Amino acid sequence: MTDHFADRLAAAVSARDTALCVGLDPRWDRLPERIRRRHGDTRMGRARAYEEFCARVLDVVGPLVGVVKPQSAFFEALGTDGLAALFQVVERARRLGLLVILDAKRNDIASTAEAYAEAVFDWLQADAVTLNPYLGRDSIEPLLQKARPAGRGLFVLVRTSNPGAGQFQDLLCEGEPLHVRVARAVESWSAEHLGRCGLGDVGAVVGCTHPKELTELRQVLSSAWILVPGYGAQGGTAADVAGAFRSDGLGAIVNSSRGVLFPFDPSVLDWEKEVEKAARQAAEALRPVTAER
Amino acid sequence: MTDHFADRLAAAVSARDTALCVGLDPRWDRLPERIRRRHGDTRMGRARAYEEFCARVLDVVGPLVGVVKPQSAFFEALGTDGLAALFQVVERARRLGLLVILDAKRNDIASTAEAYAEAVFDWLQADAVTLNPYLGRDSIEPLLQKARPAGRGLFVLVRTSNPGAGQFQDLLCEGEPLHVRVARAVESWSAEHLGRCGLGDVGAVVGCTHPKELTELRQVLSSAWILVPGYGAQGGTAADVAGAFRSDGLGAIVNSSRGVLFPFDPSVLDWEKEVEKAARQAAEALRPVTAER
Repeated sequence: MTDHFADRLAAAVSARDTALCVGLDPRWDRLPERIRRRHGDTRMGRARAYEEFCARVLDVVGPLVGVVKPQSAFFEALGTDGLAALFQVVERARRLGLLVILDAKRNDIASTAEAYAEAVFDWLQADAVTLNPYLGRDSIEPLLQKARPAGRGLFVLVRTSNPGAGQFQDLLCEGEPLHVRVARAVESWSAEHLGRCGLGDVGAVVGCTHPKELTELRQVLSSAWILVPGYGAQGGTAADVAGAFRSDGLGAIVNSSRGVLFPFDPSVLDWEKEVEKAARQAAEALRPVTAER
Repeated sequence: MTDHFADRLAAAVSARDTALCVGLDPRWDRLPERIRRRHGDTRMGRARAYEEFCARVLDVVGPLVGVVKPQSAFFEALGTDGLAALFQVVERARRLGLLVILDAKRNDIASTAEAYAEAVFDWLQADAVTLNPYLGRDSIEPLLQKARPAGRGLFVLVRTSNPGAGQFQDLLCEGEPLHVRVARAVESWSAEHLGRCGLGDVGAVVGCTHPKELTELRQVLSSAWILVPGYGAQGGTAADVAGAFRSDGLGAIVNSSRGVLFPFDPSVLDWEKEVEKAARQAAEALRPVTAER
């Protein structure tokens, strides 16, 4: 029988004793110069450079974390070559035993949402995908139909951390902010199908720029995993994200992209050492908040 | 100087004297049997079949309509082969002089949104793309920065027509439904940069299952193009969409996908005749509502 997504995620976190998730957001101008020179600045060259860079990062962080989150947009920007690179990156991550959350923020309905489910789960073989809630449960259902029996999961945007996030997400809707209404819906979807760890397969994305909000949303999302982006380079600290965890230290994964991927100067030769050091420090910094309290 | 997107769209509508937009939503089990047999039921075979089918549809509808809307999800479901097919379809549409609105409902922020802008406008060369508003203006801005100077456009989801659309979109937010708040934001973004036709380059997507809502949203969206999906097979009629147009007969495009693409039985040989007839009828049916009133 296929394991429940929440239990697979809990196992991935426990195995490395850290809630750190490494975001794979390759950017051409931050890549090591040697990699850029080897592949050249064409669309295909960039795609191959992204593939090589991400593969080498995966080899470094594989023993240190349990989860990675490739950002689809950076690969899509390079067209079919970029998508082919993304495929290779996901395959390598899975071969290393890492759980893969595709950050794609997909959203559509009916047979169109089914097509996205095919793209993400059948073709790319990701373990989970981020989704936008604006279209309602209809837009979640077709992906859930495919994810749930296969031990895969979904993460629905609840409250993002960009400066303008509040424009719609914080509007007062029938007594509470819109994002709290969305969180209640996510919680009900998650609670439909719990794993042994007591968490479900529909999680929430909640930015960490408002630590108090995180604590409040943890209450609403009592059975849902919370994916917290914005750790490290975007300004969040371990103390800021503590509120996202349950008292048993489970329930959240914390993503760092730039902080782990690009701690080095592009001219440096042994950049992998710096990535390893950054990943090790970020993973370590989260240990106190994930220890059972 | 590059023409403003709103004027390009107005010209495309005027040239064929119809507000009809043909949605390119290829589905394997509805394709003509001969095309399916020729390419075979593998991922690459399906992608090539989609490409052939869409190319032949474009050749048929090219003289009858000014705008097409490929649905990205159906191509993405086939991985890199599907994306390569989408590229060919967009290129052929543009060569036929058609305006291409990519239905991809993208949404993200900052450099990630810039990457989506590269994917849609630089790589795929679409004329416009659909976006989800949940992340706020930050998620629109990077795409607008690329679209605006290049005479391209954006369409932001306001009110969709799926049964569960109201779950969030109809919540009462500070006195009015969420989708009306979103419509007001879209109107303000559109009004920033008007074309000669008096319309802007940020449009709205409003489903046509609620004709009264369409009329009300036309008032809010006084300077914005409205893209109305759900015409034809999804149940909408010409009378249902009339409210989306301004009194001068401009301001809306009406999408039909299945009704135009798949009016035939897959075993029929001269399916192109049926596509032509369906496109001609759908285009014709919209003429009374686009005539100046």
